[in-house]
Amino acid sequence: MIRFNNDYNHGAHPAILEALVSTNDEAFEGYGLDPWCEAAAAEIVKYLDEADRDRAQVHFLVGGTQTNFTVISALLRPWESVVSPASGHINVHETGAVEHIGHKIEALPAENGKITAAQVEKIARDFRDSTIPEHITEPKMVYLSFSTEVGSLYTLAELEAMRAVCDEYGLYLFIDGARLGYGLGSPECDMTIADIARLTDVFYIGGTKCGALFGEAVVIMNPALAPSFRSAIKQNGGMLAKGWLLGLQFHTLFKDGLYFEITRAAIGKAIRIRDAFAAVGVPAYAESPTNQQFVILNEEQMRILGEKYIYEYEADLGEGCHAVRFCTSWSTTDAEVDALVADIEKLAAE
Amino acid sequence: MIRFNNDYNHGAHPAILEALVSTNDEAFEGYGLDPWCEAAAAEIVKYLDEADRDRAQVHFLVGGTQTNFTVISALLRPWESVVSPASGHINVHETGAVEHIGHKIEALPAENGKITAAQVEKIARDFRDSTIPEHITEPKMVYLSFSTEVGSLYTLAELEAMRAVCDEYGLYLFIDGARLGYGLGSPECDMTIADIARLTDVFYIGGTKCGALFGEAVVIMNPALAPSFRSAIKQNGGMLAKGWLLGLQFHTLFKDGLYFEITRAAIGKAIRIRDAFAAVGVPAYAESPTNQQFVILNEEQMRILGEKYIYEYEADLGEGCHAVRFCTSWSTTDAEVDALVADIEKLAAE
Amino acid sequence: MIRFNNDYNHGAHPAILEALVSTNDEAFEGYGLDPWCEAAAAEIVKYLDEADRDRAQVHFLVGGTQTNFTVISALLRPWESVVSPASGHINVHETGAVEHIGHKIEALPAENGKITAAQVEKIARDFRDSTIPEHITEPKMVYLSFSTEVGSLYTLAELEAMRAVCDEYGLYLFIDGARLGYGLGSPECDMTIADIARLTDVFYIGGTKCGALFGEAVVIMNPALAPSFRSAIKQNGGMLAKGWLLGLQFHTLFKDGLYFEITRAAIGKAIRIRDAFAAVGVPAYAESPTNQQFVILNEEQMRILGEKYIYEYEADLGEGCHAVRFCTSWSTTDAEVDALVADIEKLAAE
Amino acid sequence: MIRFNNDYNHGAHPAILEALVSTNDEAFEGYGLDPWCEAAAAEIVKYLDEADRDRAQVHFLVGGTQTNFTVISALLRPWESVVSPASGHINVHETGAVEHIGHKIEALPAENGKITAAQVEKIARDFRDSTIPEHITEPKMVYLSFSTEVGSLYTLAELEAMRAVCDEYGLYLFIDGARLGYGLGSPECDMTIADIARLTDVFYIGGTKCGALFGEAVVIMNPALAPSFRSAIKQNGGMLAKGWLLGLQFHTLFKDGLYFEITRAAIGKAIRIRDAFAAVGVPAYAESPTNQQFVILNEEQMRILGEKYIYEYEADLGEGCHAVRFCTSWSTTDAEVDALVADIEKLAAE
Repeated sequence: MIRFNNDYNHGAHPAILEALVSTNDEAFEGYGLDPWCEAAAAEIVKYLDEADRDRAQVHFLVGGTQTNFTVISALLRPWESVVSPASGHINVHETGAVEHIGHKIEALPAENGKITAAQVEKIARDFRDSTIPEHITEPKMVYLSFSTEVGSLYTLAELEAMRAVCDEYGLYLFIDGARLGYGLGSPECDMTIADIARLTDVFYIGGTKCGALFGEAVVIMNPALAPSFRSAIKQNGGMLAKGWLLGLQFHTLFKDGLYFEITRAAIGKAIRIRDAFAAVGVPAYAESPTNQQFVILNEEQMRILGEKYIYEYEADLGEGCHAVRFCTSWSTTDAEVDALVADIEKLAAE
Repeated sequence: MIRFNNDYNHGAHPAILEALVSTNDEAFEGYGLDPWCEAAAAEIVKYLDEADRDRAQVHFLVGGTQTNFTVISALLRPWESVVSPASGHINVHETGAVEHIGHKIEALPAENGKITAAQVEKIARDFRDSTIPEHITEPKMVYLSFSTEVGSLYTLAELEAMRAVCDEYGLYLFIDGARLGYGLGSPECDMTIADIARLTDVFYIGGTKCGALFGEAVVIMNPALAPSFRSAIKQNGGMLAKGWLLGLQFHTLFKDGLYFEITRAAIGKAIRIRDAFAAVGVPAYAESPTNQQFVILNEEQMRILGEKYIYEYEADLGEGCHAVRFCTSWSTTDAEVDALVADIEKLAAE
Repeated sequence: MIRFNNDYNHGAHPAILEALVSTNDEAFEGYGLDPWCEAAAAEIVKYLDEADRDRAQVHFLVGGTQTNFTVISALLRPWESVVSPASGHINVHETGAVEHIGHKIEALPAENGKITAAQVEKIARDFRDSTIPEHITEPKMVYLSFSTEVGSLYTLAELEAMRAVCDEYGLYLFIDGARLGYGLGSPECDMTIADIARLTDVFYIGGTKCGALFGEAVVIMNPALAPSFRSAIKQNGGMLAKGWLLGLQFHTLFKDGLYFEITRAAIGKAIRIRDAFAAVGVPAYAESPTNQQFVILNEEQMRILGEKYIYEYEADLGEGCHAVRFCTSWSTTDAEVDALVADIEKLAAE
Repeated sequence: MIRFNNDYNHGAHPAILEALVSTNDEAFEGYGLDPWCEAAAAEIVKYLDEADRDRAQVHFLVGGTQTNFTVISALLRPWESVVSPASGHINVHETGAVEHIGHKIEALPAENGKITAAQVEKIARDFRDSTIPEHITEPKMVYLSFSTEVGSLYTLAELEAMRAVCDEYGLYLFIDGARLGYGLGSPECDMTIADIARLTDVFYIGGTKCGALFGEAVVIMNPALAPSFRSAIKQNGGMLAKGWLLGLQFHTLFKDGLYFEITRAAIGKAIRIRDAFAAVGVPAYAESPTNQQFVILNEEQMRILGEKYIYEYEADLGEGCHAVRFCTSWSTTDAEVDALVADIEKLAAE
């Protein structure tokens, strides 16, 4: 069976394992206070606009759910809420971690995984104009994913509009970049890390789904926020004792652009799969120019592809139709894609 | 100006003040361990079916928001969520208190302030059938208001259907009865307190909005729940030092049926207002057979009625139309209603 | 049986009941936005130094536990802790409410119910000098009670020293004044409300134990704190729907100095009891110049006094000795004290 | 510089890296649902008494702080507290994570890092006998570390006595085994994993400090607890996407007893260091038969050893004396210990 179900079903890009092996005999300071974390942060910051580099604060955590609730817990006061697409990861796949830590999520209807600046403005304006503001939570942060949970992308114009609304109403803009590499690496993306950094208060760069064993790099751009962010990391269980393991991985990914090599290659493979499905008339469930492809299969198609491939089941759409996901990653080989494409082509004949 | 904006704009029914005055020179044990709380609980339990009386546990808290988050905090485990109509009080008017205490609210679209057993069954079944239950919260409680936030009522059949779903999926049924008296006192209601008690795991009887100075009586019907509920009350700030003030009020309300006298009279006045609006063609915003009447006014109508009456503004419906609320309570006089009805009738001529 | 067990075993001072009765037919805006709350705040602020009046923000809550955790939740960030005497109310009698809301209490050994500026300085300095600050909570608030849980008082010099430490280390000073009236009303007190206000970031004025039916008036002196304090009150269940009931009570207590009349009279009676015990050689368990008197009785003495009086049991001190509390309040009569004193005098003969 | 400051300053035992490298090309199911986690659990369970194996439930988390608050959050109800030595890791080195998640820690004075069954019995009995149980938290769990934070050990008799108290009062017994291997591997230990499992409700086996890159294996022995523990792990950010990385490491450590080989070797080296200090009259700060050695140095001794070795600073003991820690681990070489011992011996000549 070949796994296309997600982008975290293999270990790490070989360069990362190599880095772990080659440093295994060295001793380091713990808890992220080591030279590798420092060097990794320096490499990441190089991708930012020069004017933005000084204020960027980089921290390394282990996983995405942890990163999301740690950032939100550290930034928001108890009566403040976070605005999110209803399909946002924090709203549907984190076992209520944000609420568990004390904050309401204001879920907005999403289209193709995205919300608009106008939607956010409405909720912010409704709060500002409310005659009973103390009876409702104050929307104080916008949470977006890039690329989104369905593989889609915000454009630079969309993100600038979102920033403008955040500025007008005093909201923080937080981008969950668990798949940042797949967003920025897409041929349809019109942004760079520098844009993301310039336009957000805080964002993170996913390692787990982009070639690392694990790890997420949080970049805090608004220096007024979270002066005690390391305390928040520790309190929420995200401070790895052997913190250099995180620094080492991100250093490997960022010092020579390996991060984007990995994600671009994976996207190329995903596009081949997308095009193959389109060619035989299998409809897309979401429009994605990134490494996740969601398509609508009937049960016979599911059965046939399920004989050789593991895909992720998403939703029963009724009338015998089902949404499923095919994902690529650093470990996906051309041979695997060749095989899948060939089998997709055969679907036409069924 | 005459206040029709809510049902808590006056002190207390005179009988309650009289009870406070007449006992002011006596000394009592604190924290709800006094004879008045005991006597009040006994009076309340008399309204239940005989078979249900022994297992009922009655506690007195000060206010509604407090009662809601205390009950939810006491009953649910961290990964469990509460299913509520999107328009439910806990979801829109309690400053995120339920999330603050750690629980996600699964908000379902409501119609006329209500959700259906079928809606609840879908979310419960989706969880049971989920392939990744640990990534999502477990729906474990259904929260309903009776009467609802827009004055509407569940029927006995609807509540029995809800109970059946709760039984099938292991959910608790919790009824917020901040306006229980207005629900049960409505001529259109086909239930009694005994039905509510029989069909729920926990519910409460509102005092604040039904003639008391303040106070809500929680009735826990499922004895397996919250063995340490008094600890939960104290921890959440709801244990009044002079707890007999609560017992005394509920004893006054329940010993001779004053509670329903109050609410029936108020509903009668509200129906007069409803009929007056209908007679001049002012549309209802929600269908309510209880003490809250929501109507749709244009701006000229708002201006005219706003000269003599305070109503509660609800929502801008666009095109110059606005939803507003007119409420009655124990303190609403016939003269006040006569005046309002006369002024409503004049709207026809405008 | 005559109750001396606490200072909240009767209803309210008659002037307060009179105020409730005389306004019962009037309608008010809810949630503390009424003229009585405004007037009560104005009366309270008059007790402050002129220079401090503008920055004082007054809010009314229902009870003490609620007030404590609401203030702490509103002021502290997640990784910040509150320093308290080990005997502080938040540490021993609130069912872990502060921890429940997410904050560690750093409990310091107390002497006669009090901690010193030097103790606080040590913990603050230890944190500042820590090589691993992110592994420990940051002491950010000092919590004191005045009068304390054993009836003792801080002096002006002690409070000024505490303020100086707080200033040096950036800590907030929060005084729980559930018994503020008994502290300030004591003949041994060298402070006024104005001093308390000048030296704290936030404090509150207890109503429940000082003659009201219920209610605590929070005075926020540091305007940078809690810009959304009303949201915190609502979220934590402390916003009374009929908020004017609180304003009305505090207005009654403060407009003509009734608050201190009540507490001074009660203290006078408590001193008579203290002196009577001392005269017959019954040792004090704590030194108190206020309305609470803690004495050490043997079992025979407990039995004898227990025949006519209800006192509060505190602790088994071993060897047949027990600490108990005798309390006075607005409702304690001279006749009750005469009787108790006479019975204490008889103990000498046993 | 040679690091003796802690037991987590190197990567992983070579066998673990080898396991990661050799499986890097294979694809696995995520979130701990892979064959390696299953196999690792099976290997761990083999160490238990046969009668205990069926009820043991094994889960893998990333780090210790995370594991502690996840277990406590999953097992305790809001009003329940955890009893811990004052020196316990949860009380002093986890940034208030347990309180952040809502629970009070009842810290008891520790001697040589340990508390006694009698101390626990007193607090449990005080609660049971309390006349106001709802005003205080209910002690419901005992938290111990094995080996402790100062390297000391509970004996089998001590743990059995603790279990007996827990049984009598209905408390859970939870052992933090971040250094379980160093406890069980000590020549002075009279217990096995089977004893730990038999006597506790839940415990965990530390990987991070015992040769793994990271990871802690929680073993739930009381099947009534935490039926939804995977939900708790996910909600608290401890569910690693590439969960097989944890299974793989624990499988490597447990399949042939490598875990204890590692810890026994490290303890042997630590004992050499302990004996060297003792031989030159350097006093121990705590009595430890495990891999952590705490000694009291004067400033000249600190300076001399600080030229070649990194140790961990613990506390200023006054009068020029300081407590410091020397630690060994899988990575400590004989040559490093030879060098340190030689330099310690030279201290005698100073």
